[in-house]
Amino acid sequence: MDKILRIDVGAAGGPSFRIEPIGAYAGLGGRALTSTIVAKEVPPLCHPLGEDNKLVIAPGLLSGSAAAMSGRISIGCKSPLTGGIKEANSGGQAAQVLGRLGYAAIVLEGKPQNDTLYKVFINKDGVKIAPDNSLKGLGNYDLIDKVKAEYGDKVACISIGPAGEMKMSAASVAITDMEMRPTRHAGRGGVGAVMGSKNIKLIVLDDAGCPMRSAADPEAFKEANKNFVQGLKKHPVTGQGLPAYGTNVLTNVINEAGGYPTNNFSTGRFAGAGKISGETQAQTEQERGGDPTHGCHKGCVIRCSGIYVDKNGKFVTKQPEYETVWAHGGNCGIDDLDAIALLDRMDDDFGLDTIEMGATIGVAMEAGLAKFGDAQAAIELVKEVGKGTHLGRILGNGAAVTGKVFGVERVPVVKGQAMPAYDPRAVQGIGVTYATSTMGADHTAGYAVTANVLGVGGNVNALKPEGQVELSRNLQIATTAIDSTGMCLFIAFAILDQPETFGALVDMIGAFVGKKMTADDVVNLGKSVLKTEREFNLAAGLSKADDRLPAFMKKEALAPHNVVFGVSDEELDQLYNW
Amino acid sequence: MDKILRIDVGAAGGPSFRIEPIGAYAGLGGRALTSTIVAKEVPPLCHPLGEDNKLVIAPGLLSGSAAAMSGRISIGCKSPLTGGIKEANSGGQAAQVLGRLGYAAIVLEGKPQNDTLYKVFINKDGVKIAPDNSLKGLGNYDLIDKVKAEYGDKVACISIGPAGEMKMSAASVAITDMEMRPTRHAGRGGVGAVMGSKNIKLIVLDDAGCPMRSAADPEAFKEANKNFVQGLKKHPVTGQGLPAYGTNVLTNVINEAGGYPTNNFSTGRFAGAGKISGETQAQTEQERGGDPTHGCHKGCVIRCSGIYVDKNGKFVTKQPEYETVWAHGGNCGIDDLDAIALLDRMDDDFGLDTIEMGATIGVAMEAGLAKFGDAQAAIELVKEVGKGTHLGRILGNGAAVTGKVFGVERVPVVKGQAMPAYDPRAVQGIGVTYATSTMGADHTAGYAVTANVLGVGGNVNALKPEGQVELSRNLQIATTAIDSTGMCLFIAFAILDQPETFGALVDMIGAFVGKKMTADDVVNLGKSVLKTEREFNLAAGLSKADDRLPAFMKKEALAPHNVVFGVSDEELDQLYNW
Repeated sequence: MDKILRIDVGAAGGPSFRIEPIGAYAGLGGRALTSTIVAKEVPPLCHPLGEDNKLVIAPGLLSGSAAAMSGRISIGCKSPLTGGIKEANSGGQAAQVLGRLGYAAIVLEGKPQNDTLYKVFINKDGVKIAPDNSLKGLGNYDLIDKVKAEYGDKVACISIGPAGEMKMSAASVAITDMEMRPTRHAGRGGVGAVMGSKNIKLIVLDDAGCPMRSAADPEAFKEANKNFVQGLKKHPVTGQGLPAYGTNVLTNVINEAGGYPTNNFSTGRFAGAGKISGETQAQTEQERGGDPTHGCHKGCVIRCSGIYVDKNGKFVTKQPEYETVWAHGGNCGIDDLDAIALLDRMDDDFGLDTIEMGATIGVAMEAGLAKFGDAQAAIELVKEVGKGTHLGRILGNGAAVTGKVFGVERVPVVKGQAMPAYDPRAVQGIGVTYATSTMGADHTAGYAVTANVLGVGGNVNALKPEGQVELSRNLQIATTAIDSTGMCLFIAFAILDQPETFGALVDMIGAFVGKKMTADDVVNLGKSVLKTEREFNLAAGLSKADDRLPAFMKKEALAPHNVVFGVSDEELDQLYNW
Repeated sequence: MDKILRIDVGAAGGPSFRIEPIGAYAGLGGRALTSTIVAKEVPPLCHPLGEDNKLVIAPGLLSGSAAAMSGRISIGCKSPLTGGIKEANSGGQAAQVLGRLGYAAIVLEGKPQNDTLYKVFINKDGVKIAPDNSLKGLGNYDLIDKVKAEYGDKVACISIGPAGEMKMSAASVAITDMEMRPTRHAGRGGVGAVMGSKNIKLIVLDDAGCPMRSAADPEAFKEANKNFVQGLKKHPVTGQGLPAYGTNVLTNVINEAGGYPTNNFSTGRFAGAGKISGETQAQTEQERGGDPTHGCHKGCVIRCSGIYVDKNGKFVTKQPEYETVWAHGGNCGIDDLDAIALLDRMDDDFGLDTIEMGATIGVAMEAGLAKFGDAQAAIELVKEVGKGTHLGRILGNGAAVTGKVFGVERVPVVKGQAMPAYDPRAVQGIGVTYATSTMGADHTAGYAVTANVLGVGGNVNALKPEGQVELSRNLQIATTAIDSTGMCLFIAFAILDQPETFGALVDMIGAFVGKKMTADDVVNLGKSVLKTEREFNLAAGLSKADDRLPAFMKKEALAPHNVVFGVSDEELDQLYNW
């Protein structure tokens, strides 16, 4: 991973590429690399779909090695959804394969001269870029079927669906999983629209003949990795809860805590939660011949994913994540797992962020376009997005645009990005993260649900403002660092509670890069990247007024606890004072 | 004008009202009053369509008196289009009538409890508010016909069309003219959407039995007014150009200067300009039995408006303003005056800002929804807005939303508000006003076209950055003061060039309020109101990054002069340093 592939999509006669040494970016991976490149090379006031924006695709620092859980890929740009910097990350196979191909990043830059669509093929021998308008309008599933026919099923793909081609702000970038299905997505912030604006439909990665990346100190690395894996196996969340029920184990937990946003954030408990919980989902998968315990990439030892099948045992989609089940489920008053799985499949196929789409459908329901609870209506609305009708284009641009177009006041977004599956009034720490994250509302940016609800990494009363800023700050710093390693964020459960597991991670990174690392190095990396991102956002025009939750969350009390968001503006403004 | 009418639309059982003494707001009128009330009473981070926003309707300080040109009414709120403070002003009869009724302002506040639509009737005996769902969905023309049938044709009306009811961000508030037609509009910033969010469709003002407002020193006032009128008659723009050809006299002038934005700001000259110029328009009106020289309110001595009729001599619309002719004309490649007049009529009827709509159609054409130059397609697109189809809701929310939904990069807006009829690359002073005005892109906020193109109030090279910030700053300050008096902005031509006419204005204000006034008092008022507005915007989340033109205007050279916008960010940031 000592080189960067730059593709100039604006070159005369079609895209050209050059492979450069990593140079000044050496030592950075994942989010640290995408955010550093974006901050350094993209003018903060440029149009997100214009010539000057860049799409940066970077595996993590450890991706492609034998390190467990190191399969996350980061995709960064100026976001068409938030107007600020964006790093969206995803599991799937691409990070490991790209790492083994030796690329620290792929950078798509420039502005296409016409509307020809291109595909990129990368293997050990080099890079090929070819026009292929036959791919136009293809859903990710059909697209990947074509790839399989042409390249076999051992490659990994990075692609966009029709939503990305239409440059919708809710468009994702799809990453294929171990079965070469386009089920993993860098979902948030419209990264797919930026890929679409570069007219690159597909990147095929083939690491045949490429060795696993090796550590500077192989023995120490192997030992640390072993201890790290033991730690993950030992912790109840990563060792038991997530493997058994997937992330959807949270439906009952968050609903019980009264923080489950229901009917467009109108109440904190959903009567139908039991019907769509992780427990029900796992049982359904088991009974039908699916699989509730499955990894999204090779090297995963948590295996929080699964295979969701229909009543006939036929594959529908990967096991929908908790946030997806919530977004298309309780947030829209829908308690039908099959409908939710279909919506997840459609989002993956069209190339859409499930969180943004579920929140958008919720806003559309509030606007009267459909009734809360009407699963068929929700499916029809998402179909519109795939077709790119006028209504579809509204919805495909996310909750904020949909609220604006239909004159809706209650729109659960921060910096234009939809809130995920935790109501910030009943989980106030996550509210601080939503408000202050450089990414817009994003639970993964500082998952305060840990100490607020799960009792992981300490305990902070979820309903009170006290201590939430400190909690969120520490988590945001740690997360930023983890997002740079290529590690799955779920390792956080174990490293927050088990100092020896955190130590094993630090040792593993140190052994890999051949430098003694300390916990402080990790914290300093997180701080430094966050600061870079924050400065980009300020230069792009975001201000402290953008570090706020929507006004209704400070006025409208959430049942059952009847709480409003109580962290003061002054406290929020302290988040970056460290 | 010593009282304020406050209507609480959220009261149990329907809107209630109270009439308060003007109190701390005494001495303020027009924009000074609307902006001061909004800044003091509206939380900057509230939702523009929510409970906490207020719509403030205020005649000018001199409105309702015998002062010539004092018929402007200001409408203020937090704007759903820009997210900042907004004052949109309009001619027509309402300012004079409201002034004579003694109200310094009407304030609509609160949040309706249901979707019942209301009308308000105000006369010398008091205020009546009545539900009237029969008005739902009515265009302004049909609405005013109903008013005539019920109240006669001596009243003045303030109303919204379907666009306002649908809370579209391009929705205007209509004001009836001397013939009681809904042809004058407080167009910009979505003030109509805020009125719509309060469920007030119509305000009928009847000043029967109310005397003209009298000056503190009637003799001095009369003398000053006489001198003021003489000055207006003497100046070539206010005495000849505007009466003869209306504001559309500018089409040939700006086109000749190479600053006429054509085909969505793609070039600075329009081949069809001669077919839609003020000269052609006046001749057409004359030949068909219309009227090229007509006032929009009683007491106007410039009479820049006119009556546009069809080939059979039947009334179509008031003479479309230059900015309207440009927006629906050259900006969309359309050179058909009858089509433009029809679009103007439709905008007035639906209650839409003509500048925002023309710019939006231009963006839609860039997105491929219609071809530049296709007048019939433009008409069909505006019909969609009136019907409130999904496409119509996109377009009715303005150019920025339309650009976002269709993934268009070249969107000519600042702070979300569409640029008017002067390309900021070829008229760099107006570019400074667009960029830095508290209102978003707005030519009236600091009309630097004067010294840049017209040779009024000095000469500053339009194509160079030098001197533009100072020019725009001084004009913005002066304009803010004029907008507070109720005076039509067109008096600026005469007062900029003729010190004695400016002196007459200052004397007239002084004689009216009974206090010796100086030019410094006027300047200080302007500065103070601008500062208030600026502070609101900063608190609402706008930052210096919002004081910028779209990126493409700094990169894409405009023919025929092949210039980009050259005023640096550092210079723009000096505008409020006075």
